[in-house]
Amino acid sequence: MIGPIGVFDSGIGGLTVLRALRAALPAEDFIYLGDTARLPYGTKSAESVVRYSLQCAEALIARGIRCLVVACNTASASALGALRLRYTGIPVIGVIEPGAAAAVSASRSRHIAVIGTEGTIGGGAYQTAIHRLNAEVRVTAAACSLFVAMTEEGWIDGPIAEAVARRYLDPIFHGAPGVRYAIPDTLVLGCTHFLVLTGAIRAVLPEHVCIVDSAATVAAAVSRELAAPDHRRGRGGVTWLATDGAARFARVSSTFLGEPLRADEIEIIDL
Amino acid sequence: MIGPIGVFDSGIGGLTVLRALRAALPAEDFIYLGDTARLPYGTKSAESVVRYSLQCAEALIARGIRCLVVACNTASASALGALRLRYTGIPVIGVIEPGAAAAVSASRSRHIAVIGTEGTIGGGAYQTAIHRLNAEVRVTAAACSLFVAMTEEGWIDGPIAEAVARRYLDPIFHGAPGVRYAIPDTLVLGCTHFLVLTGAIRAVLPEHVCIVDSAATVAAAVSRELAAPDHRRGRGGVTWLATDGAARFARVSSTFLGEPLRADEIEIIDL
Repeated sequence: MIGPIGVFDSGIGGLTVLRALRAALPAEDFIYLGDTARLPYGTKSAESVVRYSLQCAEALIARGIRCLVVACNTASASALGALRLRYTGIPVIGVIEPGAAAAVSASRSRHIAVIGTEGTIGGGAYQTAIHRLNAEVRVTAAACSLFVAMTEEGWIDGPIAEAVARRYLDPIFHGAPGVRYAIPDTLVLGCTHFLVLTGAIRAVLPEHVCIVDSAATVAAAVSRELAAPDHRRGRGGVTWLATDGAARFARVSSTFLGEPLRADEIEIIDL
Repeated sequence: MIGPIGVFDSGIGGLTVLRALRAALPAEDFIYLGDTARLPYGTKSAESVVRYSLQCAEALIARGIRCLVVACNTASASALGALRLRYTGIPVIGVIEPGAAAAVSASRSRHIAVIGTEGTIGGGAYQTAIHRLNAEVRVTAAACSLFVAMTEEGWIDGPIAEAVARRYLDPIFHGAPGVRYAIPDTLVLGCTHFLVLTGAIRAVLPEHVCIVDSAATVAAAVSRELAAPDHRRGRGGVTWLATDGAARFARVSSTFLGEPLRADEIEIIDL
């Protein structure tokens, strides 16, 4: 098959996944769609997220993609089944299964912590995916909603980022004095936004904790899926689509993408 | 005219306005609509916000309201004109004009600070409304996006709330050493969410600064509009509507409403 790899997210967090994909597959072409008109998905109901995800996928399919990457944890949690049912002709890869598999491989204490948006955590998708791989692993999951706003503001390090990280993570990684149980030795960043907070998160974690980053794990899964060797089908280009606010998209994207993007490179589409 | 007062917001922040309205007009009936499926409006384009606002208003008009309160600063900033053009038969009251008038009355130093979402501040609505009242007033405006996520998380006081408030407000109220100019003596809370952060904001402001709260000012404006004396038309009841997520709406609302709300009291509607 030919054609670009389609990547969608509720907004700009998925750019961390795109960045990892481009690093892993430098000769592929990509189409990135950020559904900025309806972000965030993380606080929406599962029914709405499924409907939005099908609309995003439809727009990408219409542009001839040969593989669909759901670069949004909330959409992966709620809509992956519906997407795979509808699009049987191409691989549909979400961020949750690869992250869960990496976490199960990494954990020695058999206790994994997962952080994400309210939608991802509340839906229990990571918990289910981990238990499908190993039912004996203990999973501690917590929603860290403020991380999203903080990263979009560009406050990705410094005392406020660390104080917020401490408030969310200390209850998970530092039990009450005298309490003895295996604390998690693995932390899954179950929201694509959180990757850019790795420094602040690392600063407040016990040293031995392994951080599983869903961008890198999904890029590895896509590489495996798209039959090696790389046939150098494309030129490593990206087509940028969004549903609202090209100026904001361009401005905030650099934190996540690691390089600048101009507003006039982004096409605004209706879904 | 008879009928309830309709109040809409992008989500739950407008509950601070509803709370002030109920305190000012205890015998009136209200319909509150939170467009939770499409929140936040604050980072959406003006075109989208106008379209969403007209749809919200239409749903309330269909339920027989006799007055429309736009309890969202972003929607007031972008859509008030369009709403007044379409609904000429009833009063349409936004939060910006009353807040701007209160600030101009309060300020002695002729320097007013306004904080809000990106959409409200970027659109310049407060700046324009203040200058329409007094062109000689200096206005310093700043977007404080993290405040929204923080209040929805319930982190409304304590060290993190104060550190975030300091990061946003210190550059406005504490100039560089040696710099001499009139600092603002009035701060407009130009987002309905921010009202619940009054304690943390007050803690980092110079003592003499007056805080203008848009919920109280819009409640006073509605009271004036609805011809005193109060004819005790209703029973002080509220009909609750939302476009998504009754459970989250109920859970997060208490911070803003000051009283509990059950998910089964909220009707989910499509717009």
